This record gives sequence, structure tokens and C-alpha cells, in this order.
Amino acid sequence: MLINGRSGDSVAVLDRGLQYGDGVFETIAFIQGKAPLWDRHMARLTAACRALALPRQDVGRLAVEARQLLYSDDALCGRHVVKIIITRGEHGSAYFPGQGDATRILYTRNWPQRRQQAGCEGIVLHRCQTRLATGSPLAGLKTLNRLEQVIAAAEIRQAGFHEGLLCDADGFMVEALMSNLFWLKQGGLYTPVLDRCGVSGVMRAEVIEQAKHFGMRVHEVRKTPETLKSAQAVFLSNALGLTAVTEFSGRHMDVNAVPLKIRNAIQQLLS
Amino acid sequence: MLINGRSGDSVAVLDRGLQYGDGVFETIAFIQGKAPLWDRHMARLTAACRALALPRQDVGRLAVEARQLLYSDDALCGRHVVKIIITRGEHGSAYFPGQGDATRILYTRNWPQRRQQAGCEGIVLHRCQTRLATGSPLAGLKTLNRLEQVIAAAEIRQAGFHEGLLCDADGFMVEALMSNLFWLKQGGLYTPVLDRCGVSGVMRAEVIEQAKHFGMRVHEVRKTPETLKSAQAVFLSNALGLTAVTEFSGRHMDVNAVPLKIRNAIQQLLS
Repeated sequence: MLINGRSGDSVAVLDRGLQYGDGVFETIAFIQGKAPLWDRHMARLTAACRALALPRQDVGRLAVEARQLLYSDDALCGRHVVKIIITRGEHGSAYFPGQGDATRILYTRNWPQRRQQAGCEGIVLHRCQTRLATGSPLAGLKTLNRLEQVIAAAEIRQAGFHEGLLCDADGFMVEALMSNLFWLKQGGLYTPVLDRCGVSGVMRAEVIEQAKHFGMRVHEVRKTPETLKSAQAVFLSNALGLTAVTEFSGRHMDVNAVPLKIRNAIQQLLS
Repeated sequence: MLINGRSGDSVAVLDRGLQYGDGVFETIAFIQGKAPLWDRHMARLTAACRALALPRQDVGRLAVEARQLLYSDDALCGRHVVKIIITRGEHGSAYFPGQGDATRILYTRNWPQRRQQAGCEGIVLHRCQTRLATGSPLAGLKTLNRLEQVIAAAEIRQAGFHEGLLCDADGFMVEALMSNLFWLKQGGLYTPVLDRCGVSGVMRAEVIEQAKHFGMRVHEVRKTPETLKSAQAVFLSNALGLTAVTEFSGRHMDVNAVPLKIRNAIQQLLS
């Protein structure tokens, strides 16, 4: 684990990352030592730092530190995850943010095993009762304020599932707990609009670009979960790949209807 | 600073308090070594832990540790603030919360000087553009997810103020950045309802109880800031006391119209 470029595993209690969740993070897939979505992750991180007036991060230095970690963990082969956390450090007074260097944290994690299985077999998607607050100034950003997700995760596990669909306070679909949501209908690809809450995933952006590349129409929409009843296919995307949904709200979904061109393109990207 | 009963000043990077803001906090006024609102703070902390399925805290142990800190800081005289942070520790896998001991952090801070001045003179209240997301499962709780407040604080400072009124995404008043809001109208006391977002302050509860004790009618309402134009008085409450609003949206407010009985009762409580 690297903290501001040095080996470590703790942060100050007064760090605003702990005090207020005053920071952002990225969870990045590395395959054979390379991160296929690196540029997208860095663009999102840079945009989030700008939106929150966090110090701009040196992308080159982040790349060097990520490789340094993978090298020292003997993780240049196979699949690994690098998590980057940027907080505002201890600069500020109560809620008022101050000027100064960020706290920069990088560490590696093993690729989640469940993830690999789900990628092949698809998953059953729980319909969460937990709602996401809407009209958030943090909409789209991957910030350290993730307590709604923790509450939803507890609900999903208690219901016996591993992933769940989250709606906003008005009942409109936003995303899944750990992924963005896509569905296929009459040849068009649909995904919830993320202007009022939710995280704008890097793989979501990649899927949208790939779909357009293959001539598909992509629609960002505000819809209730009832829409999924008449979907030909439903799938989830996150930084580690795509996952087909096999069942939602008692209805079985056709895993094979997930557009093959997109599946292949993403699989190739992550191989 | 005490962390799980031991002297320290840092937490693990993997602590969920940092990773997700998975925790709650209390900011408690101590006057001559005693906390007049201690029971209210402990009731709120206990309720928040239950709501988030965080381990129930031993209130007696928190009291012992708070006094231990004040004693070792030579802070048993005068006014001081004790902050208590409870996180879920490192227990869990990604968003999914696990079972195990919480991380328990206590430390003392000096009483903010600006606060003492504002208490006497009153403050000008900025009208924030930053909105609070609404329909939150965290409504009322004082969690570590406070990034909306950080964004609002930056706005308030940039506008040249020290406190600001926050509305929800639908334009209804919720609270001030660091306080709850009250206004007086035709003899009745009003405060925003906090069922969709906001923090349910311990001093807010105390003010409501005192007002009822003095025979005033107290109304929890959903209103836009325009309501304040015809208010006889506007004041703010937080754990450290009451503050009159002298000006809002270009309109001067009568500091002396803040109900004297309530002012005196709270002043006596905190003396």
C-alpha cells in the first residue's frame, strides 16, 4: 500500500476522507500489468477532483505508483485490481475545505472470485427497497460518500442475493449496487440517465461507445423497473467487466440476447 | 486522542469509515467538564448505530473516555468540544458490511472562537445554491457522509459568509450548514421537517422541548425560503448553542425577537 508515495497502511483521524468522506476513488482493472480503461479512469478522477476542488492529480505519477505496487506484489501477471483513493487531506476547518496537498492512497486487491463466476453464468438481480437520494450535487461522481450503498448491500445480502437494482427516491432506476445497468429493447440499448444521482462508470462509457461503434442507438432514460419486464436482455457493467442478468423480479432473462458484438469487444479489451 | 480506548491518531486505510463514510459522529459541548446534552447525544448515537446496524456502543465507556480525555488535556474547566466517531471498522467485503467491533474515536477540540462571537452578535445567513439530495435513507442521521456540506461550505466562504441556508433538491428548506433552523411567526415556532434529508440536531430537540414547555406551538414544516421574509425572527441551533440571524436575502431580522425564554433556557443549560 502506498500513501503519498510511501509504504503505509493508515491515515490520520483528522484526514477529511474519514471525517466527511471528502474524497474520491477509482477501482481499476489491471490485466497482465496493463489497465485497458486507464485513460477513462484518469479522466473521471480528474473531472471529480475539479468538481470538488480537490488538488489536480499527476496522472503520470499515479501510473508509476500503480506499476510499482503491482511489481512489488508480484502481480504483473494475471488479473488484479488497483484502488486509488484521493482525499483532501487534513486541510480545512470543519466543513470548510482548505488548500494543500491531497492524501493519495494506492493499493492492490485480488480479482474477486465471485466476479469471474458471475461473468460466465450471469446473476440474479435483487430489486432493492433501499432508495438513493435524488438531486445530489455529487451525481455521477465516485466519491467516498457511499453509505447508501452499504445500506443497500446489507439489504441485498439479507435477501440472499449478490447484486441489486437501485432506484432513486422517485422510483426511477439508477444503477446496480456495484455496476451500471443496461437493457436491450427493440434493437436499442438503454441505460438510466445519471444526472440526479448514481455513479457514471468508466465501463458504462466504454459500452456506450462500443454500442455506437456497432451502429446501435443508445438512450439514457429515466424509467421505472417495470420497463425491464419487456426487455430482451439486461446486463450490468463495471470496471471489471460485463455480467448478464439471468433473473429479475421473478422473470427469467435470456443471457444469450446480450449483444454478442459488445460482449466480445469488452472481453477482448479485458484479455 | 483515543482510538478504541488507546492513545493514537490514525486509522487503517481499510477502515470503512474512510472507504465509504461507513460510520456516524457526535460533536458534544462540555462545560466545566460536564455535557448538558449528553443524554440526547447518546440517544441519537444509539439510534444511528441501530439504523445502520453498527455495533451498539457502551454509553458508560464513552463517558469514561470523554472524561479521561478532558482530564489529560487539562480541559475540565471552561468550554470544550468532544468529538466521537464510530465506524464499522474493517469488517465487511466491499460495500457489504460485516460483523465485528466498531472503530471508536474520541478527541477534544477547543470551543470555536467565531462561535462565541456569533452567539452574541448574530450572523448573516447566506442562501446556498448547493442543494441537498432528497429522499435519503440517511435522513436525520449524523453520518460520515458529509460531502454535500463540504461543497456548500466552499460556496458559503466564496460568497463571503460563515453560515448558509440549505434547501433540498425540490427547493424546500432543510437546515443551515452547521445548524438547524427555526423561525418565529405569529407566536408559533417553525422548523423544517427532516424526513427526507438533513441532520436531526440534539439542540433542535432541546429547543422544541423548551418551546413546548413554555406553551409555544412548534410546527415541523416543508417550506421554501420565501417563508422567512415574513418571519418575526430567525435563529439557528447546534450542539454549541443558539445563534440569531441578523440578515437573510437582503432583509434585516430582529435579533431581539428571538424568544427570550428559550434563549435564557439554553444559555442556562450551557453555563
